[in-house]
Amino acid sequence: MSARHGPAVDVPSGRPATVRTPPPGDPRLTRLSLNQWTTRRWGVAEAVAGCARFGVPAIGLWREQVAEHGLAATARLVRDAGLQVSSLCRGGFLTAADPAGASRALEDNRRAIDEAATLGAGCLVMVVGGLPAGSRDLAGARDRVAAVLEELVPYAVRAGVRLALEPLHPMYCADRAVLSTLGQAVDLAARWPAEAVGVVVDTFHVWWDPEVLSQVARAGPRIAAFQVCDYLVPLPADPLLGRGMMGDGVIDFRPLRAAVDAAGYTGFVEVEIFNADVWDADGHEVIATLIRRYVTEVL
Amino acid sequence: MSARHGPAVDVPSGRPATVRTPPPGDPRLTRLSLNQWTTRRWGVAEAVAGCARFGVPAIGLWREQVAEHGLAATARLVRDAGLQVSSLCRGGFLTAADPAGASRALEDNRRAIDEAATLGAGCLVMVVGGLPAGSRDLAGARDRVAAVLEELVPYAVRAGVRLALEPLHPMYCADRAVLSTLGQAVDLAARWPAEAVGVVVDTFHVWWDPEVLSQVARAGPRIAAFQVCDYLVPLPADPLLGRGMMGDGVIDFRPLRAAVDAAGYTGFVEVEIFNADVWDADGHEVIATLIRRYVTEVL
Repeated sequence: MSARHGPAVDVPSGRPATVRTPPPGDPRLTRLSLNQWTTRRWGVAEAVAGCARFGVPAIGLWREQVAEHGLAATARLVRDAGLQVSSLCRGGFLTAADPAGASRALEDNRRAIDEAATLGAGCLVMVVGGLPAGSRDLAGARDRVAAVLEELVPYAVRAGVRLALEPLHPMYCADRAVLSTLGQAVDLAARWPAEAVGVVVDTFHVWWDPEVLSQVARAGPRIAAFQVCDYLVPLPADPLLGRGMMGDGVIDFRPLRAAVDAAGYTGFVEVEIFNADVWDADGHEVIATLIRRYVTEVL
Repeated sequence: MSARHGPAVDVPSGRPATVRTPPPGDPRLTRLSLNQWTTRRWGVAEAVAGCARFGVPAIGLWREQVAEHGLAATARLVRDAGLQVSSLCRGGFLTAADPAGASRALEDNRRAIDEAATLGAGCLVMVVGGLPAGSRDLAGARDRVAAVLEELVPYAVRAGVRLALEPLHPMYCADRAVLSTLGQAVDLAARWPAEAVGVVVDTFHVWWDPEVLSQVARAGPRIAAFQVCDYLVPLPADPLLGRGMMGDGVIDFRPLRAAVDAAGYTGFVEVEIFNADVWDADGHEVIATLIRRYVTEVL
């Protein structure tokens, strides 16, 4: 994969590092957040230490890693490190058609909301789920997402947690998220106040959409999170791992970032990369590279 | 792949054939067309013979196979067999940014139009092309498609050939078609009369779209071709080959077929499957299976 997609990190023999890694405290880094799945082999402690070392002021946490480290311990750790939690990944998977499955999903999402509240996360990212096994009822699955949210949103509001609906690339419609476009996510979110239910703009998922710029503008104050990573061509055999380092794929980030800014979003820009090569690389090198690429490709 | 996706053809030990293959002349087959890529290992002569044997009244031809058999010979062969040519695949790849590439594309598309005219094809399917190598200028590529069509449409009109713009699944936006939704295709086609420029509705490419039913209705008389195949989950390692036999994937065909009918489309329903297992199977078995699946899943 490396040969086709470029190196996962900038190394002397690979892509030249056209900028030095900005030092901690550099004003260009004030909106940067490390989604911890980018440094997937690290636990919470290493990821927090990595952010502190490079001056990345925020982190996007994942429930699995938080559970491993302990919820209260994680909350303490990030607070002591002076980090903000840009998001908690993730709630969702709301499409179960059977009452037991729906009830389990509701229960799990309530726990996720509680965790997001404890961590002071900027939002809980919601990946709404795909078609239940054997089902072809896409409209039904979409209706169930809305119905479960009706139950979940009041709980989240009471907990002070903002839900962030994430449209996923249509290639994941069947198995991960029946929410497939930003416009559809805004339509759904619009049933509730913007401060209760927002949307996630993730460049990988929306870059292809002919309506993306107008829908970003329409989303406005509903933009709860902005995630960046590149779209690799060709996609690797596992399409979940086609998320590349910014600059290694086909996405032109600046127009999207400018549109999100123009829509009024002032939150963090979270780098979330699912990529076997990136995961195999040294975490510190990955952070150094993503900081440089953030400066050269996104800012 | 077979184990996860079901058999490529109906065999005694596999999925039960719940209906017998309707015999030639069965009124249920009057709108069926075999896209010859479904029986990819066959040349034009074998595919035409296969259609005749099973009473499939139309065929979607591919330029490569037509060239191998000879253009005039193919036109004679299909006419003598009493087959209609539902479509010719394919023109397009209009996004080259350099003048030489753009000029080659224009020339090649004029040849494709001439071939479609000779074959009496119902339309020339246009796969518009992705980003040029190294480019991230998606808006520019989309603009160039429109610009080249401005030159090409008059030529097609004079030749009596209808161009059919095919939106491809967004996963192919970078490398095959910057036309990603049916709505976008209708917007583009609307610059010309419906009889000059239509659109292709291909279930694989549009099933996920939250707007698909309203856009099919809006397309109305612009629907120039309706292609069916299923969307397999998980996708195989080569995502181009994720097109399965109807019934083996996640698409609910009837609502889409009913919407296309309600929009006024009375043309052929072309079965176009790109799938390694289908290609490895005996062509006659493939046709028998697709006829049964057409009856049980689509009609």
